Amino acid sequence: KMAVDNTLMLDSPTLAERDQLAKLQPVDDASPMRLRMEKFVKEQQREIVRGLEAIDGGKFRIDEWKRREGGDGITCVLQEGNVFEKAGVGVSIVYGKLPKAAILKMRANHRNIVNDKAEIPESLEFFAAGLSLICHPKNPMAPTVHLNYRYFETANPDGSSGTWWFGGGSDLTPNYLFDEDAILFHKSLKDVCDAHNKDFYPKYKKWCDEYFYNKHRMESRGIGGIFFDDLDGDAQDKETLFAFIQDALKSFIPTYTTILNRRKDMPFTEKEKEWQQIRRGRYVEFNLVHDRGTAFGLNTPGPRVESILMSMPLTATWKYMYEPERGSREARLEEVLREPREWV
Amino acid sequence: KMAVDNTLMLDSPTLAERDQLAKLQPVDDASPMRLRMEKFVKEQQREIVRGLEAIDGGKFRIDEWKRREGGDGITCVLQEGNVFEKAGVGVSIVYGKLPKAAILKMRANHRNIVNDKAEIPESLEFFAAGLSLICHPKNPMAPTVHLNYRYFETANPDGSSGTWWFGGGSDLTPNYLFDEDAILFHKSLKDVCDAHNKDFYPKYKKWCDEYFYNKHRMESRGIGGIFFDDLDGDAQDKETLFAFIQDALKSFIPTYTTILNRRKDMPFTEKEKEWQQIRRGRYVEFNLVHDRGTAFGLNTPGPRVESILMSMPLTATWKYMYEPERGSREARLEEVLREPREWV
Repeated sequence: KMAVDNTLMLDSPTLAERDQLAKLQPVDDASPMRLRMEKFVKEQQREIVRGLEAIDGGKFRIDEWKRREGGDGITCVLQEGNVFEKAGVGVSIVYGKLPKAAILKMRANHRNIVNDKAEIPESLEFFAAGLSLICHPKNPMAPTVHLNYRYFETANPDGSSGTWWFGGGSDLTPNYLFDEDAILFHKSLKDVCDAHNKDFYPKYKKWCDEYFYNKHRMESRGIGGIFFDDLDGDAQDKETLFAFIQDALKSFIPTYTTILNRRKDMPFTEKEKEWQQIRRGRYVEFNLVHDRGTAFGLNTPGPRVESILMSMPLTATWKYMYEPERGSREARLEEVLREPREWV
Repeated sequence: KMAVDNTLMLDSPTLAERDQLAKLQPVDDASPMRLRMEKFVKEQQREIVRGLEAIDGGKFRIDEWKRREGGDGITCVLQEGNVFEKAGVGVSIVYGKLPKAAILKMRANHRNIVNDKAEIPESLEFFAAGLSLICHPKNPMAPTVHLNYRYFETANPDGSSGTWWFGGGSDLTPNYLFDEDAILFHKSLKDVCDAHNKDFYPKYKKWCDEYFYNKHRMESRGIGGIFFDDLDGDAQDKETLFAFIQDALKSFIPTYTTILNRRKDMPFTEKEKEWQQIRRGRYVEFNLVHDRGTAFGLNTPGPRVESILMSMPLTATWKYMYEPERGSREARLEEVLREPREWV
């Protein structure tokens, strides 16, 4: 009976169904990248949750969910902890179909998304897997951090991998600038980049400064990091890119833990807490007005809104015409946000 | 010497220059609508500021500003008052040029923006005047209110008025639902509408429910009111529309004062204050993600960001997976937001 059912299913299996079957075997280096990436981000999510819990002393709430349209996810949130006002670590695995319009749009960045000789199909199956993270610490001296690494591919009609790419990055948003933190954060990303390709750091550092620019405020969201998208075979071979993504993700906990340990117990004033809340307001503005990831998520059919908006701070403030005093530490941060720096 | 200068200026005066000259005479019913609307909204701003100060006991900060590209504005904000967490009343007068692309886009709603026989010009002078208002009271039992009325016109090359339209409306956003407040608010708008055209209230009430819909949350921003845009000669003659706008604006202070006097001193718990902060978060989401006015403002060249974002609450909260208790007053509000009601 089982054999019959399997045979029937294999008549025209979807990508999700193929992967369900494949997952009955252990995932290794010979498995499709879809399964390797899914396994990796889920492992990393557990590692990161463990690492952040060790710093905070509190526990994450863990929600597993399924997308009706295909795929699933795990959202982990720690709220009102000892160190974190809010920390969220989310994994999402998406199976879906790209409509023709989306295929045509993707062709701009990925010429080989459809074989030039073939006609453009009405739809194309795709897969996406990613890990997203954001931590808003309580202490205004401790910086907010954001990280996201993702893999995307389309399936050919015969089920083999079509076009694929990696995207991601990580950036730091301090309320008070400690040069040594900015240097450590960038140095750690540069080391990871350099180990795989010497061109990566300068290129993706610049891309990050450009992407996380809060246009209407004419300032950067924070002091940057790295950002990249659409990294396919033109940028580097697939195995090197995957190794790079893995190293970048693994370097997060050691680096951020070092920074947090320096800052989480520093004394601060009410005025400094207020400044943090104003900077939180700017963070909300960037995420809701300019961030393409948030906009994309909210406009996807059947979004899990609470998972997308776990990036929102617990609290934020908007004060009309708030101006830091000349020469103050707050004013110094604003100067640096207006003109991104080279930190390493 | 003066005469010579005037003559030189009149050689090819801009719309702003023509109006500067016209304003040397008193503005009356025979004046261009531009000047009548500007005079009216500036008078109303003073009235409303006086009315809100009488309720609060505090004073508004008043900032007058000029747009480098033409026009000016007055932004009045009362922050951390006795009754209001934040209240903003802004007037802006804009003179500018529409590029060809914008002219073509406007043709969808205003066929006569260019004479069909003539070629579409490279640019067209325009004028816009409006009053915007938002009040976020401290007491969670007192509702947030928003109001905006505006007039737009293009100038023909000879300086006469081209296409014109009015837009605007007003809507109420309670954290706790008091049916009598919702009924009063809608009744007062219906009375104003009915006095000018019996079709207005049902049409603009529906438009309001559709416009202030927070799509990603699948709920309305609040309990609605009226909203309309692009009201030109097809909707009603210009004098009737102006009279309607005037009555609508003048009805604001009496109605909102009545509601506030019922609510501003009511007792409330910490939990109720928290719910208010969560609803403030939703307000921020609507304004930054979906509101076309905010997006338009932030993307206009040389925006005065602090005037656009005076609509932000002083503080807001985002709690992951916050769910009101079944059968609670908070849950009742959510039900009504999911399914807009007829209040009168």
